[in-house]
Amino acid sequence: MLSAARHGTRCILFGPEADVRAALTGGEAHSVDIVDCVTSITNDEEPARAARAKPDASIVRAAKLVGEGEADALVSAGPTGAVLAASLLNIKRLPGVHRPAIALLLPLPAGQILFLDAGANVEVRPHHLVQFAYMGAAFSESVLGVERPRVGLLSVGEEPGKGTPDVVEAHSRLADGKLSFAGNVEGDRLTSGEYDVVVTDGFTGNVALKVMEGTVRVVGAAVRDAARSGPLSMLGGLLLRPALRGVRERLDPETVGGAYLLGLRRPVVICHGSSRARAIENAVALADRGVRERVVERTGDALAAGSALRGGREPDGEEIPPGLVRQR
Amino acid sequence: MLSAARHGTRCILFGPEADVRAALTGGEAHSVDIVDCVTSITNDEEPARAARAKPDASIVRAAKLVGEGEADALVSAGPTGAVLAASLLNIKRLPGVHRPAIALLLPLPAGQILFLDAGANVEVRPHHLVQFAYMGAAFSESVLGVERPRVGLLSVGEEPGKGTPDVVEAHSRLADGKLSFAGNVEGDRLTSGEYDVVVTDGFTGNVALKVMEGTVRVVGAAVRDAARSGPLSMLGGLLLRPALRGVRERLDPETVGGAYLLGLRRPVVICHGSSRARAIENAVALADRGVRERVVERTGDALAAGSALRGGREPDGEEIPPGLVRQR
Repeated sequence: MLSAARHGTRCILFGPEADVRAALTGGEAHSVDIVDCVTSITNDEEPARAARAKPDASIVRAAKLVGEGEADALVSAGPTGAVLAASLLNIKRLPGVHRPAIALLLPLPAGQILFLDAGANVEVRPHHLVQFAYMGAAFSESVLGVERPRVGLLSVGEEPGKGTPDVVEAHSRLADGKLSFAGNVEGDRLTSGEYDVVVTDGFTGNVALKVMEGTVRVVGAAVRDAARSGPLSMLGGLLLRPALRGVRERLDPETVGGAYLLGLRRPVVICHGSSRARAIENAVALADRGVRERVVERTGDALAAGSALRGGREPDGEEIPPGLVRQR
Repeated sequence: MLSAARHGTRCILFGPEADVRAALTGGEAHSVDIVDCVTSITNDEEPARAARAKPDASIVRAAKLVGEGEADALVSAGPTGAVLAASLLNIKRLPGVHRPAIALLLPLPAGQILFLDAGANVEVRPHHLVQFAYMGAAFSESVLGVERPRVGLLSVGEEPGKGTPDVVEAHSRLADGKLSFAGNVEGDRLTSGEYDVVVTDGFTGNVALKVMEGTVRVVGAAVRDAARSGPLSMLGGLLLRPALRGVRERLDPETVGGAYLLGLRRPVVICHGSSRARAIENAVALADRGVRERVVERTGDALAAGSALRGGREPDGEEIPPGLVRQR
């Protein structure tokens, strides 16, 4: 983050001032502002309730400042649920957006994909999936620099008629829309590198990500076991170890990429709770890029061009999706 | 299969008689009956329509014989959709069962789990999930020999309140029921070996299985790449290769285990289309065990004891679930 500040991004840090100061070198301390917050929201709290009940929590104060326009974007390594709840209450939804979604960037070997919804909305309707697709594509294009991102819809068969009735209807609307829509994606093609953005509901999305995580763990353990199964294998494992190091972490959705809240009035980036300096710095750089590339405006434009905006009265931005699931 | 026949299971083979005979040795030809069928249902056909339109197809004739009580169980290596459709029409559902489910046996390193529904029902209600749980547990107990199988419900958090409203309701009914219910299972725990049976809807189930398959493929490729990244790694890869051989196949749900149709009036086992002699022999042995251990009766008893049977008029067994997805 401090390096980000050095690159010209003005950073405001929210947290216990003494602790924050202690972590800074003298030169760094001059390049950031610190807002002293002694309260925070933990992983154990119910996010929506805590975000309302704790106006002094660091994440709430930070989101408020962004919501008031005093800062342009929010970056946090706090619990995803707390960041989402604080952002919904204080930054609010982009006009015309039904529900924000959590998008996860998965840097797979075959190419990175933006995967959403990773768990903000356990139940969705076709128009939600359609909005997720436009929001994901706008993010991919503006922040990740992908030209005409290929958008896939997670389902149980490639044919347009496969899936739940809601998925089938979303497919039909997307096929008639303005995106570079690549059709249904089956689970085994998720990791194939053929798509830039893959859209699903938050229940299936969460299960898919966690199954991926568990499978990587099990395969890694099996490879380790194989490397212990005899003297020659053991030597092989030793020789191979440097190259294997990192394979698991590179493929683990819990340790890679970042989470982005799409559909809010300002860019919001969530880093993994165990993020080190470089991950935070990357997150700040992405948020900065989101501001400079006007991701929020472009998301609104893309939704409007695709006739995917919510009609009628604008949402008040205070409703928090039920069953918010993704805690990190 | 022939070895199964030698073990005392009488087998009737359905297929083109000349081809079947050509594949048999003289001694084997005497221990099986052959029903000459020149028609079959392929993977490209719409299963329900084909099962109705092709009464002479091998799978339809075999299912009919089982339905008429002339044979006790059905084993097939044909397309899952065709086997399910032919079985629904001719063997019919167990009285009180809403919908049959496809259960897949995943022999994971930490222990095997029976995972259902793997794709027969893309949309389910709480009472379907509850029935799947009782059917899976009865199968696990009678055919797999697991005492008091631990049954988990796939969801997006361990707490009873996590998941879609339907999953939350199914959780509550299962928690009040007669099973050894282990609560919600998150995707990353699926492979942990803590559960004997894991229940979900056919959409999530299909996605989860295919994500597992794709992830195994990607990790395998990453390990191979690592083993080609330099001379020492290459030597390491060579030494490790014998031990690694099989790791991928052992973990690939598409190549392991078998699929079982639960909720029908006779045991039905589906082998993978590329099954070799030993896989078919195992499938016949499991079907045989299902008959001897009275899996169908015990499934009915378990559903009744758990008050999970469908009320009112009995189904006619002819309704085929919409959106049947799992083709193998």
